[in-house]
Amino acid sequence: MKIHYLDNSATSPLCDEAKNAIKYCIENHFGNPSSMHLLGAEALSRLDSAREAVATALGCLPKEVYFTSCGTEANNTAIFGAAYARRRDGNHLVTTKIEHPSVLKAFERLEKEGFEVTYISPDSEGNVSTESIASAVRKDTVLVSIMAVNNETGAILPVSSVKPALRAVGSSAYVHSDCVQAFGKIPVRPELLGTDLISVSGHKIHAPKGIGALYVSKNVRILPLLVGGGQEKGLRSGTESTLLIDAFAAAVKALPDVKRSLEEISKLQSHLVSGLSALDTVVINSPKDALPYIVNFSAEKVRSEIMMHHLEASGCYVSSGSACAKGGVSHVLAAQGISRQRADSAIRVSLSRFTTEEDIDALIKGVELGVNLLKKRK
Amino acid sequence: MKIHYLDNSATSPLCDEAKNAIKYCIENHFGNPSSMHLLGAEALSRLDSAREAVATALGCLPKEVYFTSCGTEANNTAIFGAAYARRRDGNHLVTTKIEHPSVLKAFERLEKEGFEVTYISPDSEGNVSTESIASAVRKDTVLVSIMAVNNETGAILPVSSVKPALRAVGSSAYVHSDCVQAFGKIPVRPELLGTDLISVSGHKIHAPKGIGALYVSKNVRILPLLVGGGQEKGLRSGTESTLLIDAFAAAVKALPDVKRSLEEISKLQSHLVSGLSALDTVVINSPKDALPYIVNFSAEKVRSEIMMHHLEASGCYVSSGSACAKGGVSHVLAAQGISRQRADSAIRVSLSRFTTEEDIDALIKGVELGVNLLKKRK
Repeated sequence: MKIHYLDNSATSPLCDEAKNAIKYCIENHFGNPSSMHLLGAEALSRLDSAREAVATALGCLPKEVYFTSCGTEANNTAIFGAAYARRRDGNHLVTTKIEHPSVLKAFERLEKEGFEVTYISPDSEGNVSTESIASAVRKDTVLVSIMAVNNETGAILPVSSVKPALRAVGSSAYVHSDCVQAFGKIPVRPELLGTDLISVSGHKIHAPKGIGALYVSKNVRILPLLVGGGQEKGLRSGTESTLLIDAFAAAVKALPDVKRSLEEISKLQSHLVSGLSALDTVVINSPKDALPYIVNFSAEKVRSEIMMHHLEASGCYVSSGSACAKGGVSHVLAAQGISRQRADSAIRVSLSRFTTEEDIDALIKGVELGVNLLKKRK
Repeated sequence: MKIHYLDNSATSPLCDEAKNAIKYCIENHFGNPSSMHLLGAEALSRLDSAREAVATALGCLPKEVYFTSCGTEANNTAIFGAAYARRRDGNHLVTTKIEHPSVLKAFERLEKEGFEVTYISPDSEGNVSTESIASAVRKDTVLVSIMAVNNETGAILPVSSVKPALRAVGSSAYVHSDCVQAFGKIPVRPELLGTDLISVSGHKIHAPKGIGALYVSKNVRILPLLVGGGQEKGLRSGTESTLLIDAFAAAVKALPDVKRSLEEISKLQSHLVSGLSALDTVVINSPKDALPYIVNFSAEKVRSEIMMHHLEASGCYVSSGSACAKGGVSHVLAAQGISRQRADSAIRVSLSRFTTEEDIDALIKGVELGVNLLKKRK
C-alpha cells in the first residue's frame, strides 16, 4: 500500500542529502574533535563546517551556534541556562500556555525553585497577541520564551514583538524562541526575530533524530546544563555527535528557498482545508493565518484515535494532537478554549516539501470515508 | 600510509555491525517512537529491542535502561538526579579525584549548591583502595560515584567495595559508577558491582558518538535532567535518537566474550609494556594491574605533544593524556603524585579488539625513534 506520510511535525523522513552524508561519514570518518592528532583535527574541521552551515541558515556567526542532542535539550539549556545566569537580575519569567512540553516543564521546575512565571494565553483562534506579550513583561523579567510556530496548530506567534515590549519597560531580559517547527519553513533569523536564543532540531527538517542546535547571541551568557569536558566552548559538554552533526548540516544545506516552498505548501494547504471544510462535522482548529505546513482539524463525532487508525488503514499517517502528548488532552487546544469533545477529535496533519497533491487527496478521501463510516457506527 | 589507531579510549571506529545497522535504518525506518500510528509502533518496537540488547549486556531489566545522548549526559543525569532526589536524606557525597570531568564538574556544581563532597585520592600507583572508600563514607552520605576503569591510566577501581562500606555505617546512599571505559572490556553488571546507577557510552565500543545509556536500578528514583515530552519514562525527555540507538544495540550485541578478549588484549599489552620499558627514559604510569586496554607511559625528556605528533608521522595515533583534557595537565596523574615533568610527557595508548601486533610493533618502533631523535634535539 502506498504510504501518505502526513505527520512531518512529529518527525520527518531523511532527505537524500542527509542519507548520503551518513553513508559517507560512516565509511570515512570517526575521529573525536577533541583529539589533538590528525584524525581529531579532521573531525574538528568537519564540525566547524557543519557549524558554519547552520550559522549561514540562521544568519548568525558560527561561534553563536551550539550543537545539542535534540530540540528538548536546546530548549532546556536555553531556559535553565538563562534563568540561572540572570537570577540576580530579577525573578520574573514569561512564556505562553501553548509552548512545547520541553519549554513548559522547564518553567514548571523553575517555578518550584522560586521563579515567578507568567503564562500568556492564546485567543480563541489560537493566536497570541502582541498586546498580551507587552502587558506580561515587567522590569524584573529576566527571560521571555515564545515559540515561533505552534507544533499542534501551526499558529505563528509574534516573537519579534517581544524585544520592543521589553525595551518599553526598560527590561534587559533575554528572549528565547523555540523555532523547532519554524526552522526551514519561515525565516528564522535572530536579527528578524530580535531573539537572544533560538532552538532548532534536525529531525523536523529531514535530518536524523538526536541532533539539535541552540543559537546563543554573542552578547549573551547562559549557564551550561551538561557539564564535563568543556566541549562546545563549555556550554555543552559531551563528545560531539559527529555523524548526526554531519547529517544535520547536509539537511540544512538542502533546505529549499523558504518563500518558494511556502507558496507551494500554501497551495496544498488550501486544497486540504477546502476539502476538509466541505465535509460534514469537520471544523478547522488551526488559526486562519497559521503556517500552512500544519493543519489541525476535528471531525467532531469521531475520536482522534479512531480517526487516526482509520486513516492508517488507507496509508495516511497523521497525528492525534502532537506526538509528544501521547494521547493526553491537548494543552494547546484547551488553552485556545476549544471544547473537550472537539479537542478529543483533533487530528494534526503536517506537511513537508515532499508532500504531494496525491497525499492530500488520499487524506481528504480517507477523512470523508471515516466521517461517514464512523459516525454511523456510533 | 598505514594507520595504527591506538586512541580507542578517546573514540573508536565503528564496527561493521553498527555500520550495517545504520545503513539499514536510514533506508527503512524513520518513525517517532512516540507516534501512535504504525510507523511509531514500529519505531517503539525497535527501541524496545535495543533496550533489551543493552539490558542483556548489563544483566539487568530492560526497564532499568535509559538511553542518553552520551556518557557525559548519563553521568550528569545520575549525579544531579541522585543528589537532588536524596537532598532531604543527607548532604554528603563521595567521589574520587581521578573521575572523568563529566563527574567531577557535576560534583563541583553540587558543592557550590551546598553539598559537601569528599574526593578520594589514589595511591602513587594510581590505585584507589577499598579502605579509602570505607573511610570516606558516612551516615549522611547520599551518593557515592566511583568509576570502574580510569580513562587515562586504565586503573581498575574497587567499585564493588562501596556497597558493603555503606552498609557498615548504615547509609542507604546510592552508588553510581561511570563504566564508560569498562563496558565491553570487563564484566559490567550491577549485581557484581553493587551499583544502583551505571553509565555507559556507545562510541567507546565501536558505536557512533552521540549515544549512551544509564542503568537505573528499579529500586532507585532519581530526578530527570532533561524535562519535556516524558520520553524514557520521564527520566530523559527528547525524541529518541533511533538511528544511533539501533547502531548502539548492534555494537553491544557484537561485543565479544569479555574474558577471551581480555586474554588477547593482555598479550598485546605485555608486548607493548615490555617493549616500552626496554627503552631509555620510558616509564609506565599505569598501575601494574590496570585494564590492559590502556597503557599510559612517559618518555621523560619528550613532551607529550611532541611525541604525539612524532608518532603521528609514522601513522600511530595516540593521546596526550585524555582527549577530554585538551592538552591541560592531567588531573589524574597529578592526583597520583606523578611529577609535573613526567606528567607533561605522558602518552596514553588505548587498544581495542581490532588492534593487532603490527600496530603495537609500529608504536614501539615509533617511540624508540622518538626517544632517540627528540632527546638529541633538546
